[in-house]
Amino acid sequence: MKNRTLYSRTEMLNMNIQTLKERTVTVKEIAKIAFDQQSKWTSDVSMQTCIDSVEKILSLRDAFHIIQLGAEIDRLTDEGKIKEPLLSILNQDLGMFGIDELFGLELGGLYGTIGKTNFGDIDVNKPDVIERLNSVGKKEGGMCHTFLDDIVGAIAAAASTRVAQITNEIEAKKDPNIEEIKLDLDL
Amino acid sequence: MKNRTLYSRTEMLNMNIQTLKERTVTVKEIAKIAFDQQSKWTSDVSMQTCIDSVEKILSLRDAFHIIQLGAEIDRLTDEGKIKEPLLSILNQDLGMFGIDELFGLELGGLYGTIGKTNFGDIDVNKPDVIERLNSVGKKEGGMCHTFLDDIVGAIAAAASTRVAQITNEIEAKKDPNIEEIKLDLDL
Amino acid sequence: MKNRTLYSRTEMLNMNIQTLKERTVTVKEIAKIAFDQQSKWTSDVSMQTCIDSVEKILSLRDAFHIIQLGAEIDRLTDEGKIKEPLLSILNQDLGMFGIDELFGLELGGLYGTIGKTNFGDIDVNKPDVIERLNSVGKKEGGMCHTFLDDIVGAIAAAASTRVAQITNEIEAKKDPNIEEIKLDLDL
Amino acid sequence: MKNRTLYSRTEMLNMNIQTLKERTVTVKEIAKIAFDQQSKWTSDVSMQTCIDSVEKILSLRDAFHIIQLGAEIDRLTDEGKIKEPLLSILNQDLGMFGIDELFGLELGGLYGTIGKTNFGDIDVNKPDVIERLNSVGKKEGGMCHTFLDDIVGAIAAAASTRVAQITNEIEAKKDPNIEEIKLDLDL
Repeated sequence: MKNRTLYSRTEMLNMNIQTLKERTVTVKEIAKIAFDQQSKWTSDVSMQTCIDSVEKILSLRDAFHIIQLGAEIDRLTDEGKIKEPLLSILNQDLGMFGIDELFGLELGGLYGTIGKTNFGDIDVNKPDVIERLNSVGKKEGGMCHTFLDDIVGAIAAAASTRVAQITNEIEAKKDPNIEEIKLDLDL
Repeated sequence: MKNRTLYSRTEMLNMNIQTLKERTVTVKEIAKIAFDQQSKWTSDVSMQTCIDSVEKILSLRDAFHIIQLGAEIDRLTDEGKIKEPLLSILNQDLGMFGIDELFGLELGGLYGTIGKTNFGDIDVNKPDVIERLNSVGKKEGGMCHTFLDDIVGAIAAAASTRVAQITNEIEAKKDPNIEEIKLDLDL
Repeated sequence: MKNRTLYSRTEMLNMNIQTLKERTVTVKEIAKIAFDQQSKWTSDVSMQTCIDSVEKILSLRDAFHIIQLGAEIDRLTDEGKIKEPLLSILNQDLGMFGIDELFGLELGGLYGTIGKTNFGDIDVNKPDVIERLNSVGKKEGGMCHTFLDDIVGAIAAAASTRVAQITNEIEAKKDPNIEEIKLDLDL
Repeated sequence: MKNRTLYSRTEMLNMNIQTLKERTVTVKEIAKIAFDQQSKWTSDVSMQTCIDSVEKILSLRDAFHIIQLGAEIDRLTDEGKIKEPLLSILNQDLGMFGIDELFGLELGGLYGTIGKTNFGDIDVNKPDVIERLNSVGKKEGGMCHTFLDDIVGAIAAAASTRVAQITNEIEAKKDPNIEEIKLDLDL
């Protein structure tokens, strides 16, 4: 009998939250990055919308596959299960290794191309949790976060883009009707 | 006074339908491609879900920008407003010119990476409306469809991916509750 | 002491050839796909240019990282070292899993966007070695090729694009001078 | 008789330099960004390698198409030849409009994925000429640079990546032989 490979969005959300927790990251930390990024543009952002957006993204199938595979590669690197020379490349997070960024760009773009630029911003400026993951990953004996720092940055970038889409949708309407907006905003 | 640049999803949907119509394409024709593509995998696809999916995609901001700019480049090519040597490259749809495919891959991927492969399939096999646009575009004096054939294929590819996501969501649930699925499926 | 993570192009080429061999694939098989794809457009393609192009691509740093990581994920899947539910998703090559295609699109595009469409063609039509990898991968107890079939198709697609660039370069010159073309063609 | 659509690499290089000049940008300015970006990592970068790298990129077919189309869209926007509402979106460089970044990511990645992150860095920090283009573009009556600022940043990002590849290639060789490296480095 074959194992199940398809999961509902609620199941994927829960497994993603669990995996992030095992790699030391919370939904709230990710939402905080999205909040700070959008707060540069408008004062109308609520932390709750950011949390909702992060959870929305964590329920998407593509996000599920990227998070699960990325975290698994980091774990297998921690445990030395990967062959050389790849093991050293991953352990040292070689600057010219770009597959973690490839994951980040794809995940960051799930709510539109602008999410890829938002990811670039986070990747360069390394706010909060990203800086923490990055420095733990670089420490001798620290958990490997070669993929996770990019994945977490990308979730924040996509959430940030979703928040911007919501803000724009509200702005675009002359007489905004909350009910109508809600329906309007599901992708 | 600056003109408005932000539009609601309903406005974008309506402008996109209008633009496609001016370039001779209907929502139903696009939905038909998605329907045929998904019907290879399952018999549970309804034409209405395909039409809904096409309309959903036509209401997205990224789709709006890609469709409006792509159709405008085709129109400016028709009217000879573009400088040489670009005009001839666009008019003859040079095989090595890849920006139309770049538009297609980005638009096709709006519901996940698999949409980019779905776009590749449509791009190679040129079903129905794609073949028509392609052959009109190649005819001396015919409307230029260098961008439009890829854009239409990509809308179908993204719609097809959305339909697959819905099918999977239903399959993933033991006891599917339509109401819950609906809420679950908004991106 | 840290292990080396940077390799010369000759070293990367040799390691890639070795890895492909361990996963049952030869340079010549890949070159054959590129040859057949370009032969549809022109009769001026030589098998030697296709082999040279495949070897060129196998010496690129991004190709090295994608091939090494992709083959390693397949190997770890074979050995059951990956956690559930990811292990079953990879073992059964779930249709909605798109990271292998993400690898393929990035690798296929190393000589230009058209390589991504060439990859789409190969992905859909599954010529020769791709069909073999695909059917072995689907067999109970067969080697897992969830990543490898896309990677091999993408190497062929990039090689095919390089061949097209060379053909175009020769065509573009009124009085082609081989020496000059050679210099002209290095990227 | 059909116009020519295929050009040699020398022709494309010359047309690109001419187009950049018409839009007020020089090769040297672009090379300067690549130089500054790589100088953060190593002191072994020469300005000449950066200039060579920019010229290499300007001779590539994909770069040619992206530069020519991007500059042409900016010019048509300047002249008001584009239909509303697209004209206002382009004129005001709407934050949610992402096709210019799509061009930038594709062009920036021509020497590997890391070029896309390099592009993200330039896009966020807006060094030198990028800042100038950006502020001219935002001025009432100034030339439109909605596409050009991203294109120029992306050329610099790809050049920067090529310089890194060269540096790595030299580092990877125990006893570097300049002649051999030269041959080794053509893509």
